[in-house]
Amino acid sequence: MSSFLDSIKWNSDGLIPVITIDAKTGTLLMQAWANREAVETAVAEKRGVYWSRSRGKLWRKGEESGNVQKLVDVYLDCDFDSLCYRVEQIGGAACHTGRQSCFFLRLVDGEWVTEGEVLVDPATLYKQRQIDS
Amino acid sequence: MSSFLDSIKWNSDGLIPVITIDAKTGTLLMQAWANREAVETAVAEKRGVYWSRSRGKLWRKGEESGNVQKLVDVYLDCDFDSLCYRVEQIGGAACHTGRQSCFFLRLVDGEWVTEGEVLVDPATLYKQRQIDS
Repeated sequence: MSSFLDSIKWNSDGLIPVITIDAKTGTLLMQAWANREAVETAVAEKRGVYWSRSRGKLWRKGEESGNVQKLVDVYLDCDFDSLCYRVEQIGGAACHTGRQSCFFLRLVDGEWVTEGEVLVDPATLYKQRQIDS
Repeated sequence: MSSFLDSIKWNSDGLIPVITIDAKTGTLLMQAWANREAVETAVAEKRGVYWSRSRGKLWRKGEESGNVQKLVDVYLDCDFDSLCYRVEQIGGAACHTGRQSCFFLRLVDGEWVTEGEVLVDPATLYKQRQIDS
């Protein structure tokens, strides 16, 4: 069962970095981490599931904001130590700041400059959570 | 000097994951690691520079194969703990297998299936190295 999980080289914490890209455009959305349970759950439930290092628990992306990720494909790299989720990002914003991508700080002349349109008001995401719960 | 490096949250090994994408198409090419020196060198030399964990030294991508990466942009994510290099990949192949992307193993019905055209014969890359040195 689940032998594809045995091919993955987990780090000393039992985790692997996951790079999440938009299934249609290939746009880089976010980078997070997964443990064995997270990858197994992602594939079983066909959604973006990660391991939250800060909260120390399984993280079904969108469980708070409602902006879930439909998992289209999973890729593993040549070293077996990095994963890629191809997803359909519901709501359009993968970042908790309401932007499409978490990578919105661009280095310009030695300074980090904020880019990327805010598609969703983070406060609205939070209200949505209150309505949900 | 180099205060942008102070914004980066390095892990306990002094490293940060780097996701490298094609500057023109946004295609995910590879994921590697960088320490402070690698990021500083990448920006200074405008090329893809990483920290090789296996060799324990600075890794100027393409120093063996000749397929260097011209660094176009550097992005930092919302948590300050993941970097993105936007690069022009000389030779077209970022992967040591001769493929454009290192993410060529796709999960299909519980098995990792090899995808991605081999653009460059890895043996040729190696011969090139012998000619160079």
